[in-house]
Amino acid sequence: MSGNTFGQLFTLTSFGESHGPAIGGVVDGCPPGLSLSEADLQLDLDRRKPGTSKFVTQRKEDDEIEILSGVFEGKTTGAPIGLIIRNKDQRSQDYSKIKETFRPGHADFTYQQKYGIRDYRGGGRSSARETAVRVAAGAIAKKWLKERLQVDIRACITQLGEKMIPITDWSAVNSNAFFAADSSMVEELGAYLDTIRSEKNSVGAKIFVQAVNMPIGLGEPIFSRLDADIASAMMSINATKGVEIGSGFMSVAQKGTEHGDEITSKGFKTNNAGGILGGISSGQNIEVNVAFKPTSSIPQDRQSIDRAGNEVEMKTTGRHDPCVAIRAVPIVEAMLALVLIDHVLRDRAQNKEVSRMYPFSV
Amino acid sequence: MSGNTFGQLFTLTSFGESHGPAIGGVVDGCPPGLSLSEADLQLDLDRRKPGTSKFVTQRKEDDEIEILSGVFEGKTTGAPIGLIIRNKDQRSQDYSKIKETFRPGHADFTYQQKYGIRDYRGGGRSSARETAVRVAAGAIAKKWLKERLQVDIRACITQLGEKMIPITDWSAVNSNAFFAADSSMVEELGAYLDTIRSEKNSVGAKIFVQAVNMPIGLGEPIFSRLDADIASAMMSINATKGVEIGSGFMSVAQKGTEHGDEITSKGFKTNNAGGILGGISSGQNIEVNVAFKPTSSIPQDRQSIDRAGNEVEMKTTGRHDPCVAIRAVPIVEAMLALVLIDHVLRDRAQNKEVSRMYPFSV
Amino acid sequence: MSGNTFGQLFTLTSFGESHGPAIGGVVDGCPPGLSLSEADLQLDLDRRKPGTSKFVTQRKEDDEIEILSGVFEGKTTGAPIGLIIRNKDQRSQDYSKIKETFRPGHADFTYQQKYGIRDYRGGGRSSARETAVRVAAGAIAKKWLKERLQVDIRACITQLGEKMIPITDWSAVNSNAFFAADSSMVEELGAYLDTIRSEKNSVGAKIFVQAVNMPIGLGEPIFSRLDADIASAMMSINATKGVEIGSGFMSVAQKGTEHGDEITSKGFKTNNAGGILGGISSGQNIEVNVAFKPTSSIPQDRQSIDRAGNEVEMKTTGRHDPCVAIRAVPIVEAMLALVLIDHVLRDRAQNKEVSRMYPFSV
Amino acid sequence: MSGNTFGQLFTLTSFGESHGPAIGGVVDGCPPGLSLSEADLQLDLDRRKPGTSKFVTQRKEDDEIEILSGVFEGKTTGAPIGLIIRNKDQRSQDYSKIKETFRPGHADFTYQQKYGIRDYRGGGRSSARETAVRVAAGAIAKKWLKERLQVDIRACITQLGEKMIPITDWSAVNSNAFFAADSSMVEELGAYLDTIRSEKNSVGAKIFVQAVNMPIGLGEPIFSRLDADIASAMMSINATKGVEIGSGFMSVAQKGTEHGDEITSKGFKTNNAGGILGGISSGQNIEVNVAFKPTSSIPQDRQSIDRAGNEVEMKTTGRHDPCVAIRAVPIVEAMLALVLIDHVLRDRAQNKEVSRMYPFSV
Repeated sequence: MSGNTFGQLFTLTSFGESHGPAIGGVVDGCPPGLSLSEADLQLDLDRRKPGTSKFVTQRKEDDEIEILSGVFEGKTTGAPIGLIIRNKDQRSQDYSKIKETFRPGHADFTYQQKYGIRDYRGGGRSSARETAVRVAAGAIAKKWLKERLQVDIRACITQLGEKMIPITDWSAVNSNAFFAADSSMVEELGAYLDTIRSEKNSVGAKIFVQAVNMPIGLGEPIFSRLDADIASAMMSINATKGVEIGSGFMSVAQKGTEHGDEITSKGFKTNNAGGILGGISSGQNIEVNVAFKPTSSIPQDRQSIDRAGNEVEMKTTGRHDPCVAIRAVPIVEAMLALVLIDHVLRDRAQNKEVSRMYPFSV
Repeated sequence: MSGNTFGQLFTLTSFGESHGPAIGGVVDGCPPGLSLSEADLQLDLDRRKPGTSKFVTQRKEDDEIEILSGVFEGKTTGAPIGLIIRNKDQRSQDYSKIKETFRPGHADFTYQQKYGIRDYRGGGRSSARETAVRVAAGAIAKKWLKERLQVDIRACITQLGEKMIPITDWSAVNSNAFFAADSSMVEELGAYLDTIRSEKNSVGAKIFVQAVNMPIGLGEPIFSRLDADIASAMMSINATKGVEIGSGFMSVAQKGTEHGDEITSKGFKTNNAGGILGGISSGQNIEVNVAFKPTSSIPQDRQSIDRAGNEVEMKTTGRHDPCVAIRAVPIVEAMLALVLIDHVLRDRAQNKEVSRMYPFSV
Repeated sequence: MSGNTFGQLFTLTSFGESHGPAIGGVVDGCPPGLSLSEADLQLDLDRRKPGTSKFVTQRKEDDEIEILSGVFEGKTTGAPIGLIIRNKDQRSQDYSKIKETFRPGHADFTYQQKYGIRDYRGGGRSSARETAVRVAAGAIAKKWLKERLQVDIRACITQLGEKMIPITDWSAVNSNAFFAADSSMVEELGAYLDTIRSEKNSVGAKIFVQAVNMPIGLGEPIFSRLDADIASAMMSINATKGVEIGSGFMSVAQKGTEHGDEITSKGFKTNNAGGILGGISSGQNIEVNVAFKPTSSIPQDRQSIDRAGNEVEMKTTGRHDPCVAIRAVPIVEAMLALVLIDHVLRDRAQNKEVSRMYPFSV
Repeated sequence: MSGNTFGQLFTLTSFGESHGPAIGGVVDGCPPGLSLSEADLQLDLDRRKPGTSKFVTQRKEDDEIEILSGVFEGKTTGAPIGLIIRNKDQRSQDYSKIKETFRPGHADFTYQQKYGIRDYRGGGRSSARETAVRVAAGAIAKKWLKERLQVDIRACITQLGEKMIPITDWSAVNSNAFFAADSSMVEELGAYLDTIRSEKNSVGAKIFVQAVNMPIGLGEPIFSRLDADIASAMMSINATKGVEIGSGFMSVAQKGTEHGDEITSKGFKTNNAGGILGGISSGQNIEVNVAFKPTSSIPQDRQSIDRAGNEVEMKTTGRHDPCVAIRAVPIVEAMLALVLIDHVLRDRAQNKEVSRMYPFSV
């Protein structure tokens, strides 16, 4: 388990570097009989794609995915699903100067130390380009969860740098460049990011992700609790620094009377738990916040060292996002979908005989 | 993998309910040749033990651990280490009334739904009693990390309800009832918790944990990043609702110039990364915050339902902590130790031949 | 994964040395709702127990098992099942002389080399005493398979040294000391083993194991084929040297016309496949042969070396079986049961929606 | 874990159907710094390739492999190695007639039952075409084992149908169509197979595989013993029905005095153990026999049923080997290599500090 496989029963094994011939992966454990074609994966890939607005990297790629196996006559067969996306716009020349130096905030230093060798072009394996494969695999999971269990997964940005973004209208999310659930904020956010970019700087963001119409009973105590696996999934995304379930860090200052969600015959009265009790889904919405750090690559001189240990000044030029987290919205959704489908399969393996008599509609 | 095994190469498999005959576990993959006896495990078990102050549950247990295997003539042999702690003070009669009702904020409802049956006595498997086994296993990991690699792991409470607790003196942590790294706060915290208890209420807490003198290169990108595994480990502890690495949720509002830790020939200038870049340890201190919710069991009437779906009022009486997180300090340390030793073993499996030429002392 | 956990979804994690305080294990992933008590495990433990006839080791142990968790009010709860058997008759003094020398045919040499330390008392971790835990876990699996799916698992000895033993009457197996499915052979086998023992020698044996009333569809191609997992399970038993599925090594000289089992509307005409096609169960009986080597401990002078590399003559005295495989019959059954239940759970995780329309009764 | 990943630390995840767009896989956990190019993989792929002699299937494929990731400037980087082989000669029309019927001896019936859907073209996922990926991954493992530890892995056919083939000259193996280690047998074997084919029949074969210059200490007792993992690896190959370690089924009739390999200051006197004691490598050669059944596809009418359960006569025409095991020689080597490298990594994870003082040269 060298870290490139995610999940236990519905697994994604990922490969590929930013500037190698291709990225791709293998999805194993997908139940048979799901209608699936490349078009089903392309939608989320396009949402994540670079070059879609001036606020994300201008690298132009089609991110065109090919399904290599596991689908026959339009349906999944239970066999592993091979996925590949060829890298097209590689411009390796841009990156040759970082061969000998370590960019601050990047993984250059740690990859070099860990492996004694690194593909330095565009960050190599540590590039966020790898997440395209997760989005593709996540799209399979989302489709199955939606079709079989009517589960909906949706995410939006709720904080961009200093700007708080309220959730007023989920339908707005996919029609603005910031995945904001409030159209009235869009202009302000655009102006804000323009300023950040003109200052040759970057900011972080916070993403909120929710699963609606959740089945009860997902999560394997004690170490593979649903919240533990969600935390791992989110923290495995590039640039994440924090994860909260439900009321998260706010819980610290809450009183017991305030936090513990009371139950009525109609359902839970509040959702401080974020839909998870004792590591098991309660049927309420799963609610998660994820913190992303500001883009590390900024076009300003920053202090660093080279491989020989000499001090250098380096500035990162080239195509980069002023806020990496903008494109992370479909990635966050994908990772949640991968966790949920895995736990559906795990739960029914052990508990197929259990009939769940939820005493109320949520 | 039904959730009761933690780790990949240094694994803990845990069993046991709060009011069953015993709790225990199996540690597999411990390197041979480590000096080990029950006394090495008892120290941390005693730090976690209930009944040590008036601020923690008054359940009296010796938490006396027995090593059943894997140690011969005082040294580990490479064989699995069986651990058992007999449950002594069980008072099952206290819990009979919760047989038919679901306590708000507890896992009663979700266990019943998931499995169709639950050991309701004291929370059964969902009780925090189970964490004693983690503390014992973590003590083995801590000892090995300290003796072989000089790694130190330490944690303290930095927020108790509304009270912020600065870190001014690590040596104070184990000499006060609140694991506070500031002796001057102890009286105030005591008065605060007395008030909370007299109000029949509870509060949450925030724990900060740190690994000092870290080896470089731990973490397996991309899904078993060191931060992802730490997040999972922390979120698997009862009552946790959030995890941050380094500057965590503060990163969102940081600028790129502020967040990205610059590097000099003497080392990193700051540690917003929390010691992890690209999922791999950089040699800086690992720094993690963990949020704990307030104790769910409070002696006030709360609204809930019974198994038939009827609405009931229920108040939890009996022995409980006004703040469960107080006793979680050694648990947090143990989980970090379990993650780190696992990653040391995983790293040397793949990268034994790599010599790490850290160009400066941290 | 340091080797002490078996299975993927229904797992057994085992611990314990021959002469330590106890052996035991943790069964994780058992479906909830199975009626279970110690008595259910004791039957197979008694079948495996030493001291039951003059043909097996005279070590006297009760092999009394205790269930420590995972069972509540007589039923499994879905939580891990902790198992422990205290070692009572340890006579450590018998073994002190093998501290410095390596017994031929035993694991003394390899354990010492691998770990640099070994518990030499009675073979320590490499002792077949460990298999008692497998028998206990296997009894849980057998009970579930029988009650939920009507699967029967049964084994017998078909060759003892040079003696071939036909299968004429399955009901005879548990009423003779040789687990022979032919009562008329018992006297001959007794005389044969008496001779072997009087010659201070030992012999091997072959065990045939069968699963009857098999569900279709078990096995996960391509690496976790049902036959691959059975082979691994059998070869993990002490003293095994070979495994065959169906016609096994006889297949080599078979013609295609002879081997390939033809299918009629009534079912398969033959069972050369041993019930497995493409790694997946076909609904026919699973049929497996397992080869066991002769007992390594014999009371004759044998050439060996000590830890310093000096040549020594050593003879193993003490309590030993002239044929270890006799007691292996319940172990073989247990391992097959552990494989089958694991694959039932894995299959229904992925393929719960598939309805199997077996076109004929087998 | 749906069966398409092999290994624990050096893993191969495989995908692809016989007549889909491509087969491929991901090798994860390969140590960094190994020189590697497509040419290193092509040699063994060519040994396995169909169409090389009249005794193997006439399907013409180049089996041209592409490395998609994990190698940079000619060396492995520690990142996952993506592998792909495009399928070129697919002739799907040959297979349309088996859409509705189940070929005897094949996996058609069990795949249909397990998944409710199958890619019937050429056996789909159950085709031996998939083993090309194993051979490629095995070539990486073999190269690392050879360069880092001087381990040699070699296999040959020792029985072809009724014909026994002695091992007299390992250098002959790769220069005849039968992977025979005895050139004098080649003509006889050719005539024999010509007869089998002219009879429209097929035969099985036995393969012997050996690892020479073995490190001591590989294997993780008790469930991941080296012999258990080898047995699983071999039994996962298409058409295998039996596995023996060392003296295998012959051990049954051996006496203890005969079987147990005595040790002198110069080394072991015999190798009945096949190089493994207690599941751990002893430094002797690993020796394994594998039984393969006769090719199931034969151009004779055979009795079977269709999906509706109606009886049919069917004959398999098209391109097929009279003896599938001939091409399995490089597959058997590959699987042994995959097991060994995995265990080298696992062993050094836990036991890096142990210095092995083998007291004699083997």
